[in-house]
Amino acid sequence: MSKYWNKKINEAEPYVAGEQPKAGVKIIKLNTNENPYAPSPKVAESLAQFDISELRLYPNTDGGELVQAIADREGVKPTQVFCGNGSDEVLALCFQAFFEKEGNTDLPVLTPEFSYSFYPVYESFYDIRAKKIPLREDFRLDASDYAGVPNCGIAIANPNAPTSRAISLDDIAFICKSNPDSVVIIDEAYAYFAEPYETAVSLLPEFPNLCVVRTTSKSYSLAGLRIGYAIASEELIEGLKRARDSFNSYPTDRLAQKIAAVAIRDEEYHKKCRERLIATRKYTEDALRALGFTMPESAANFVFAKPPKGVPAGLLYKKLREKGILVRYFDKDVLRDYLRITIGTDEEMRALAEACTEEIKNVQNS
Amino acid sequence: MSKYWNKKINEAEPYVAGEQPKAGVKIIKLNTNENPYAPSPKVAESLAQFDISELRLYPNTDGGELVQAIADREGVKPTQVFCGNGSDEVLALCFQAFFEKEGNTDLPVLTPEFSYSFYPVYESFYDIRAKKIPLREDFRLDASDYAGVPNCGIAIANPNAPTSRAISLDDIAFICKSNPDSVVIIDEAYAYFAEPYETAVSLLPEFPNLCVVRTTSKSYSLAGLRIGYAIASEELIEGLKRARDSFNSYPTDRLAQKIAAVAIRDEEYHKKCRERLIATRKYTEDALRALGFTMPESAANFVFAKPPKGVPAGLLYKKLREKGILVRYFDKDVLRDYLRITIGTDEEMRALAEACTEEIKNVQNS
Repeated sequence: MSKYWNKKINEAEPYVAGEQPKAGVKIIKLNTNENPYAPSPKVAESLAQFDISELRLYPNTDGGELVQAIADREGVKPTQVFCGNGSDEVLALCFQAFFEKEGNTDLPVLTPEFSYSFYPVYESFYDIRAKKIPLREDFRLDASDYAGVPNCGIAIANPNAPTSRAISLDDIAFICKSNPDSVVIIDEAYAYFAEPYETAVSLLPEFPNLCVVRTTSKSYSLAGLRIGYAIASEELIEGLKRARDSFNSYPTDRLAQKIAAVAIRDEEYHKKCRERLIATRKYTEDALRALGFTMPESAANFVFAKPPKGVPAGLLYKKLREKGILVRYFDKDVLRDYLRITIGTDEEMRALAEACTEEIKNVQNS
Repeated sequence: MSKYWNKKINEAEPYVAGEQPKAGVKIIKLNTNENPYAPSPKVAESLAQFDISELRLYPNTDGGELVQAIADREGVKPTQVFCGNGSDEVLALCFQAFFEKEGNTDLPVLTPEFSYSFYPVYESFYDIRAKKIPLREDFRLDASDYAGVPNCGIAIANPNAPTSRAISLDDIAFICKSNPDSVVIIDEAYAYFAEPYETAVSLLPEFPNLCVVRTTSKSYSLAGLRIGYAIASEELIEGLKRARDSFNSYPTDRLAQKIAAVAIRDEEYHKKCRERLIATRKYTEDALRALGFTMPESAANFVFAKPPKGVPAGLLYKKLREKGILVRYFDKDVLRDYLRITIGTDEEMRALAEACTEEIKNVQNS
């Protein structure tokens, strides 16, 4: 509390990101869904060639090589691309720009009951009413639950976090079609880890109300660079630009634009990392299931795993932490029975499986 | 207009940044107050040594080398420093976090009548009432005008843009003292160009309601990097962090943090560029005055100059543009009688003076 903060800031419940250990601390970090592999080696080449005198000039925000690289990769027009300072910023601007209809603040935004924990933070920060739509058995999202519910917008992470489950393009098309006057945000932060890969970008020609949000943080190994983007109809992109220019006209810097563009254009390296990660996920799922964990089929770079009976997730989280292995634990509702475990390298996941084996034995013998 | 945009976005009058010519177009660019010199050569060294594998991890936002470099430079604690994605973002978060008192939305923010044109954009975007305080003769700000006026906050650019004038630390202290329950933002984007240099940071021990905002864009030649910061009491910095974590937890990326820290620590290079720029400003003021321009004494890296009688500023702006020289023109109120001209290199300013000489002659002979 402070007399200098306004009401909203005094009442805010800000987002709490996963713990970032200090540099130099030896730890296996499986708590914030970072990619275990370095970004494309072409990023290093690009940095080496970068002319620093360019930095004295403001960046180009609407055009430029990054927007072009994304447009090329996704097969859309550059005017259908909006870049921001990480997908968190892009999502925040989406909530600001699209959610609320003609001044009617009674209608809620629909989000899945368990989803990215930043959504409720945006809702409260921007005074948007919220309605959580329950998930079905084993965290399954049923698209029919999003039809016939009055709303001012819809936001769905696909694949969903922390549940790791994905819905089909047919489901997304159904939701867009059932809500023609609402903007439907599909947050594809983890889309590249689904097998087979598919993206709602392919539905854009049909749905002017669809806004697909992406990031280079996860699949391009650039969480430290802060580049996110939206791909949508020109009408929605124009709305995002108006929101941006009411807040911060230059959200992406020259270096980040260049590096992200290079990483996005290096499809071969991207494919290699993705395949490696999917193979390690398979290994991890098998190893954990062999230990008695249960979990939904993951389409992301993490698994959402429930320890075997008699082993509380909160306890296992603590024990792993003592062993230098950080995973994410949400001490809330049914989520508190699960651990969200990022897929790291093969070596890291072997260490995780070993540590789990040991700790489960300890708990069961105590 | 779009049915998908909300009311605010449909009604928004977003900020319009100065024109950015396309890369490769030969132009003398004196319209967005960029520094004509490249950033510190140590930035290039730092880039060459950068380990790109670091980019796979999220950045550290509250601690880290950038916050430490700023704290060292300013003689404050790291907990008194907040870093954002350019000072525009920092200012936006200040407006969101501090302006409005206990839910009372009737009180206005006070800003000078003519000042940074993003302030009214924030006010309208965040639904904050605004009250413009007139400037006195020749754009002089009189501190006494900010006493006894009910308000929810105060934002003053010092030196002010586009007027180029500065107020004294005594004036700032008076304003802080006269408004003990309001946050007073002093936006020091151009502070390093004042001669002698002084900063409101020196007043922080006295005023918990003072928030000094800075940027590396201008004096550190890093407009393309997007690093801004606030220096204030821990209480205010904590409020900014709460606003940030309701919007985008990681606003500054790893590369930008590293580079900005290196530039801030290279005081020798910074001093050299600053002195060179101040000398060129002196030359520019003399040259323009010799041509019949009038202007307030500038404390910034630009001058706000009124062309000689009979030469409309708007016409001169157009003519200079045709000659490949871009300056900034605000076609509004009394501002329309002036040109805001960024200080470039000596060569660029000689070219400007020559072009003005020629065009003034043309107008006067026509």
